[in-house]
Amino acid sequence: MTKTLNVALIGGGFMGKAHALAYAAMPMFFWPAPAIPHRKVVVDLTEEAAQEARDRFGFEEASSDWKAIVNRPDIDIVDICTPNNSHAEIAIEALKAGKHVICEKPLAGTLAESVAMAKAARASNATTMVAFNYRRTPAVALAKKFIDEGKIGDITNFRGTYLQDWSADPNGPLSWRFQKKIAGSGAIGDIGTHVVDMAHYLVGPIDTVQAITSTYVKTRPMQQGGVDKLGASDKSADAERAEVDVDDEVMSMVRFKSGAVGSIEASRNAWGRNNFITLEIHGTKGSILFNYERRDELQVMFADDPVNSRGFRTIYTGPAHPYGEGLWPIPALGIGYGETKIIECYDFCKAIMNGSQPSPNFEEALLIEKVADALIRSGETSAWEKV
Amino acid sequence: MTKTLNVALIGGGFMGKAHALAYAAMPMFFWPAPAIPHRKVVVDLTEEAAQEARDRFGFEEASSDWKAIVNRPDIDIVDICTPNNSHAEIAIEALKAGKHVICEKPLAGTLAESVAMAKAARASNATTMVAFNYRRTPAVALAKKFIDEGKIGDITNFRGTYLQDWSADPNGPLSWRFQKKIAGSGAIGDIGTHVVDMAHYLVGPIDTVQAITSTYVKTRPMQQGGVDKLGASDKSADAERAEVDVDDEVMSMVRFKSGAVGSIEASRNAWGRNNFITLEIHGTKGSILFNYERRDELQVMFADDPVNSRGFRTIYTGPAHPYGEGLWPIPALGIGYGETKIIECYDFCKAIMNGSQPSPNFEEALLIEKVADALIRSGETSAWEKV
Amino acid sequence: MTKTLNVALIGGGFMGKAHALAYAAMPMFFWPAPAIPHRKVVVDLTEEAAQEARDRFGFEEASSDWKAIVNRPDIDIVDICTPNNSHAEIAIEALKAGKHVICEKPLAGTLAESVAMAKAARASNATTMVAFNYRRTPAVALAKKFIDEGKIGDITNFRGTYLQDWSADPNGPLSWRFQKKIAGSGAIGDIGTHVVDMAHYLVGPIDTVQAITSTYVKTRPMQQGGVDKLGASDKSADAERAEVDVDDEVMSMVRFKSGAVGSIEASRNAWGRNNFITLEIHGTKGSILFNYERRDELQVMFADDPVNSRGFRTIYTGPAHPYGEGLWPIPALGIGYGETKIIECYDFCKAIMNGSQPSPNFEEALLIEKVADALIRSGETSAWEKV
Amino acid sequence: MTKTLNVALIGGGFMGKAHALAYAAMPMFFWPAPAIPHRKVVVDLTEEAAQEARDRFGFEEASSDWKAIVNRPDIDIVDICTPNNSHAEIAIEALKAGKHVICEKPLAGTLAESVAMAKAARASNATTMVAFNYRRTPAVALAKKFIDEGKIGDITNFRGTYLQDWSADPNGPLSWRFQKKIAGSGAIGDIGTHVVDMAHYLVGPIDTVQAITSTYVKTRPMQQGGVDKLGASDKSADAERAEVDVDDEVMSMVRFKSGAVGSIEASRNAWGRNNFITLEIHGTKGSILFNYERRDELQVMFADDPVNSRGFRTIYTGPAHPYGEGLWPIPALGIGYGETKIIECYDFCKAIMNGSQPSPNFEEALLIEKVADALIRSGETSAWEKV
Repeated sequence: MTKTLNVALIGGGFMGKAHALAYAAMPMFFWPAPAIPHRKVVVDLTEEAAQEARDRFGFEEASSDWKAIVNRPDIDIVDICTPNNSHAEIAIEALKAGKHVICEKPLAGTLAESVAMAKAARASNATTMVAFNYRRTPAVALAKKFIDEGKIGDITNFRGTYLQDWSADPNGPLSWRFQKKIAGSGAIGDIGTHVVDMAHYLVGPIDTVQAITSTYVKTRPMQQGGVDKLGASDKSADAERAEVDVDDEVMSMVRFKSGAVGSIEASRNAWGRNNFITLEIHGTKGSILFNYERRDELQVMFADDPVNSRGFRTIYTGPAHPYGEGLWPIPALGIGYGETKIIECYDFCKAIMNGSQPSPNFEEALLIEKVADALIRSGETSAWEKV
Repeated sequence: MTKTLNVALIGGGFMGKAHALAYAAMPMFFWPAPAIPHRKVVVDLTEEAAQEARDRFGFEEASSDWKAIVNRPDIDIVDICTPNNSHAEIAIEALKAGKHVICEKPLAGTLAESVAMAKAARASNATTMVAFNYRRTPAVALAKKFIDEGKIGDITNFRGTYLQDWSADPNGPLSWRFQKKIAGSGAIGDIGTHVVDMAHYLVGPIDTVQAITSTYVKTRPMQQGGVDKLGASDKSADAERAEVDVDDEVMSMVRFKSGAVGSIEASRNAWGRNNFITLEIHGTKGSILFNYERRDELQVMFADDPVNSRGFRTIYTGPAHPYGEGLWPIPALGIGYGETKIIECYDFCKAIMNGSQPSPNFEEALLIEKVADALIRSGETSAWEKV
Repeated sequence: MTKTLNVALIGGGFMGKAHALAYAAMPMFFWPAPAIPHRKVVVDLTEEAAQEARDRFGFEEASSDWKAIVNRPDIDIVDICTPNNSHAEIAIEALKAGKHVICEKPLAGTLAESVAMAKAARASNATTMVAFNYRRTPAVALAKKFIDEGKIGDITNFRGTYLQDWSADPNGPLSWRFQKKIAGSGAIGDIGTHVVDMAHYLVGPIDTVQAITSTYVKTRPMQQGGVDKLGASDKSADAERAEVDVDDEVMSMVRFKSGAVGSIEASRNAWGRNNFITLEIHGTKGSILFNYERRDELQVMFADDPVNSRGFRTIYTGPAHPYGEGLWPIPALGIGYGETKIIECYDFCKAIMNGSQPSPNFEEALLIEKVADALIRSGETSAWEKV
Repeated sequence: MTKTLNVALIGGGFMGKAHALAYAAMPMFFWPAPAIPHRKVVVDLTEEAAQEARDRFGFEEASSDWKAIVNRPDIDIVDICTPNNSHAEIAIEALKAGKHVICEKPLAGTLAESVAMAKAARASNATTMVAFNYRRTPAVALAKKFIDEGKIGDITNFRGTYLQDWSADPNGPLSWRFQKKIAGSGAIGDIGTHVVDMAHYLVGPIDTVQAITSTYVKTRPMQQGGVDKLGASDKSADAERAEVDVDDEVMSMVRFKSGAVGSIEASRNAWGRNNFITLEIHGTKGSILFNYERRDELQVMFADDPVNSRGFRTIYTGPAHPYGEGLWPIPALGIGYGETKIIECYDFCKAIMNGSQPSPNFEEALLIEKVADALIRSGETSAWEKV
C-alpha cells in the first residue's frame, strides 16, 4: 500500500499554486508513486486568504498560524513558498518538529540565515530540498547524463544566463522582490541562483567570482497590497516612489574548482527576454546548448561524429530520456512549468521514502548562497571574490 | 459557493491521465473557477485496472461497468477517453441519461456513428465537447484573436501539418491505432482531425478536398496486451505480423467556403518530427506562423509595419494573451500539454455552468468528421470530394 | 595554360550582374580553374544601356545587336539573361552558331519554345545549361549526397516551397513578370520551377500533378520604364492599372515516377516570406530539411542514431562538403546568392571543357517545363494532369 | 568619367581572394561606383606564388618585391593581406609613399607597431582603413541605425561573442595563428577584435576590461609549408609538436565610457560553433540580437509595441536597409562573406574619392588594439585594466 504524506503548504501565491499542482499530479505521472502526497493544510497570512487558497488548491484545511501547523503531528512535509526573509524561521521550526522540508529558492534572505538553515538540517533526520526546479527539466537532466558519460569530454567552459524583462519598465511596482530587507538581493537571488544551481549540477562547485551588478531603475512606485505581480501595472505610474536597493542585473565570470571557467548572467531588465535560461557548455569532445524558452529541446554536438555530418543535434526529450517513463508518451507533447515541479515533487517524495537527501538539499543550497554572496561582494569590490 | 461537478472518467490510459490532471488543476489556474470538478468514478475494462486508475488519478471510486456509471444520478460529467469505436455507444447512453459529455477526438470511428452522436447531442439539453485541445494552446487562440480583429486581412491561404514519427519504425507494434475496425482511420482521424479543427476554427468550414493517402508500413507485429504504446518496441520485431488497414499519411489540398485555399498534411511516419503541428496562414495584410513543438510562441507579420522594421514577430504568450489570466505570471515559464487540457476543462466547465455549447461541440465535430471522410474518399478516388 | 572562354552576356539587369560576378570570381574560388571566363561583350536593348553595363560589369565591349554578337567567331559562351519570351530565339541562334549556351530559368516562355530549344541543343555539339542555381547551394548538394548514399533510405515524401512577398502589395507595378505574353506564367515559371528542379534533382522525375492556381491581385499599376523592380513602388499607386494574367501562387500535390509523393508550392504573395525556399524530405531511414533563408545549414535526421541522442543535426556547410574545396575556409563564413552563381559558372565551364552536359541542361530543363505546363493545366482543369 | 584606382594587393592567401573578389565586384553592385578599382599588381613571397595569384585573382602583374611595388607611382591603393607581424612595415612604407592603405585586421602584431601605424597615418594625407568587415553586414549596419535613431533607448548592456571550433582539435597544425611572434595574440587579435570593433561601432569606446584567457591546447604539430589552413589535418597527428604561446579563448567583462556594461568572448575551441558572431544589446526601450551564422537577419524588440503583440521581429535585410540599394533586389537572396567585403571596398573607395576617413581607420583601429592589449594584460593580472 502506497504511503500517504501529509503536506502543509506555507504560502498561497504563484508558487503555492505550482506546488499544489505538483502534489495533485505527481502520482498521475510517476506510477507506482513513491508516496501519495495529501494536500492537508495551506497557510497564508490571513484566514481569508488561507481559505481561498484551500478551495483553489484543493487542500483539506486552511490556517493563518504557520507555527501551529508545522508542529502538528499529522504533518509530514512542510513546503515553504513565502518571501525569502521568512524561509529560515519557518524551516528551522519545521526541522525541529521533525518535518521534511522543501523550500522555495533562494535558500534564505541572508547568508547567515542560510547557514542556520543548513545547520538545522544537519541536526535533523529529515529530508530537505530547495526548489531549484529548472535543473529538473528533462533536457537539462539529459545534459547531465551526457556529461557524466563523458560524451562531451572535459568541460572547459560554462555559460549560463537567466534573462527576463518584467522589471524593465520603470513604472513596474516596488514588489518585495525589489526590497533588500525581504528579498536579500535582486536578480542574483531571484533568478541568478537558478543558474548557479545548474552550474554546480553540471560542472561542479564554483571557486571564485568576478561580478558587475547594476540597478537600472533606482526608484519604483510603491505597491498597494501585497500581491506579487511580476511586471508593470499601468495604474502605478503616478504612485509615490521609493528606492530600489537590490540589483536589477548581475554579470559575472567564474572559475570552477575543476579548472573550468565560465560566465553567469542574470537580468530582469532585458527587453524581449521572458524566461530566457540558457546554457552553453563546451567540452574537449563536444558541446551542449539549452534554452528554457524551448525547453523540450536539448542541442548537443559530438566532435567525433563524421566531419561531413557533424553539427548540433536537436533532441526533443521524451520517453527515451530522463523522467521520460513518467511524463508524456511522445516527445514534444510538451513540457511546461508544471512538469518541472511535478518532477521535483517526485524526487523529493522518493528521497523521503528512501531516507536520503535529494539535490540540492539545504547543505548544497548553502553553497549556492555562498556563490550569491560572493557575487554581491564582488559587485561592490570589483575584485575576484572567493566563494 | 462554487458548484461541484462530479466526473465519471471512462478510460484510464494516457488520455485519462491528461484529463485527470485537468480536473485537479483547473481551479488552481482559473480562479474563481466556474465550477469545481470532483473526480468521482473512473471506469476501465477490468476492476483491477479501474482501481489502479483510481489510486493513480485521485478518483473516489473505481468501476468496470461504464453503463451503470453513466446512468448514476450523482454524475454530472461523462468523460470518454476510450478507443474511437466505443465513443458513440458511451456518449449516446450518457446523453440519454442527461449527462454533460466530453469525448476524446476524433468524434467516432465511423461517420455514421458521428452522425448518431451529433443527433443525440441535439436531442439533449446537455453540453457536449470534443477534446481538440491544440486549438486551445494560447498561441493558437492568439492567432484567432488577430484574425478576428482583421490584423492579417482576408485569409488567402492556410497550411497545416501534423507530423510525427512514432510509427515510422516498421517493427512498431500493431496497436489499435492501426486497425480500421477500432480506429476508423489512421493518421487522418488520429492527428489530421486536429488540423482540420484548427482550420475550421481559424478560417471557417472546408468545402472540398483532394487527398493522397499512403500506407508505408503494410504489416506490423501483433501486440501482446492492450496497452497503447506509441512507437516501436524492440521486443516485437520477431512477433507474428498482421495487416495495417489504415493510412500512415495523408496529404491534401482543400478549398474553404470563404474562397481561401489550403493544404493539410498528417503523417505518423515523418522521421525526426515529434509533435510537429504547424500552421502557416497568409492574409492580405499579414501572416501567422505557429509550431506546436515551440508552443509558447506565435509568429506574426503585419504588412503595415514600416518596411525597414518589418518581419515576423515572435510573441511569447503570457498574461497579456488569451487564457493568460489563469496560467503562469510571465511568458515562457512554459505551456506544456497539461496546460492545453486544463484550458479545455475550463472552457467545458464554463459552458456547462452557462448552459452553452463550447467549440467544438458534437455538432461542430461532426463537420470535422465529414472532412475526414471526404479525405478518405478522395484518397480512394483521386478526385476532388465535397465535404 | 588555362583556356580562356569569351563570354557574350545578353541582358544587363539584375541577372546580368549576378552572372558577371560569377565570371569574375569563379577562378578566384575554384583554382586551378577549368577555364578562365573572359567578359568579352555585353548586350542590352540600347547602346547606352549596353555601355553602362559594360562599365559596370567589367566587360570589354558593348552592343545592342545580340544577333551579330552571338554569331561572332571569337565568342565561346552565350549567356541569356533576358525576359523569358526571348530565350528561345537567342538560344537557338547561338546554338546554330556553335556556341555554348547558358540560359536563365525558366527555359522559355512557352512549352513549344522549350521544345524547340531542347531540339536545337540536341542538334548541336554545344554544352547547354539552365541557371537553376539553388540546387547548387552547398547544403542542397549535400542533401543529394546523403540521398545518393542511402543515408535516409527510400524517399517517401518530398515537400518543396518557394514563398516570397514582393508581389503581395496590390500597388506593386505590372512588371513583365505579371504578363503572360512575356513571362509565360507567374509564380509557376518564375520560382516554382526552381522547386521542380530540386525535386527532379533529389527525388527523380515527377509523373502527375494536381494544382490550385490563384491570382490574388487582379490588376496592377502600369509601369513607367522597363526596369524589373521587384516589389511595390509608392509612386505607382495612382497609375493607370492593367490586368494581371498570370498566377500569383500555385499549390500542388505531385506523384513521382519512383512512387514517392509530394507537394510543391510557390507564391509571391506570402507576406513575411522573402526567399523562402524550403525542402522537407522524408525517407524510410531519415529526413532532410533545408531553408534557403538560412542556406549555410542543412538539417538531417538519421533514424539509426541511438534513440536517446536522435534529432535533426544542423550541419553548417564548409570545406568538408560539396564545393567546399573552392569556397571559404571555414563553415558559416557565409554562402550568399553570389556563391550559388559562382558554383553554377564553375560547373558550366567544367562541362564545356569536358565536352559534357551539366545538369540541368536544355533537355532536362524541358522536363521541368513539362511539369510547369502540367501545373498550369491542372490549375485550369482541377484534374490530375500527366507531365 | 569614373576614376580608376590601381590596386597593389600584398598577400595572395584566403584574404587576398576575398579582397580580389571585392575589387572585381564592387562596381557591379554599387553603381554608379565611386571609382573603378583596377587589379594592378599582386605580391606574394615568391614570384611563382605571385604569378599564380595574378592568374587566379585576375591581376595584371605579379611581383615578390612588395617594397618596390608600394613605391610605384602608378599605384593608388596598397592592400595588406599578410600575417600580422608584417602589417606595420608595409603600411608605413606605403603611407610614406602617399598611398591609400587598407590593412587586414588586427592592425598589427604588437601595440607598439599599431601606435607607429596610426602615427604614420596621421602624418600622411592618405585614406586608411582596417578590414573589420563584419560591422558592414547589412544587419549590423541596421542595428547601428536603430540605435542612432534612439529606437532601443539608452544602451545598458552589450554582449558579443565570436566562437569558432577550427582549433579545438589538438592535432590541428601549428599555423602562424598560434605563434605570438607572428600573430601577436590568439583568439583575442584574430577574432576578438572583430567584436571589440562592433562594440565600439554600436556602443562607443570601452574604458576598462577584466579578462580570463585560456590556452587549452598547449602544443600542436608543426606545419609543413606555410599555408594557412584553418583547422585540423589528419596527416599532422604524428608530426613533431611545438608550443602554442597564444590564447585559444578570451572571456571578458567590459565597462564602456558611456556607463554601459558588457561582455566579450572569443574562442576558436568551441565545438559546434563555426563563425558564431553574436550580439545581444539591451537598451531602455528595446533590444537587438544578431547572429552572423544567420546574417541576413536582424532581430529587434521595441518595448513600446503593444504588449500583446510584442516580441523580437526577425527582419531580413534587403533593399530597404543599409547598403540595400547596391546589393540584391529582394531580402534573403543572400548575403555571404563576399558581400561584406564588397561593401567594405565600396566604403573605402568612397572615402578615398571624398578625401575622408572611413571607419575604422588606423586611428580608430588603434583604440581596438588598446582594448586587445588591455584584455591580454588583464588575462595575466586578473585585475580590471584600463584601456
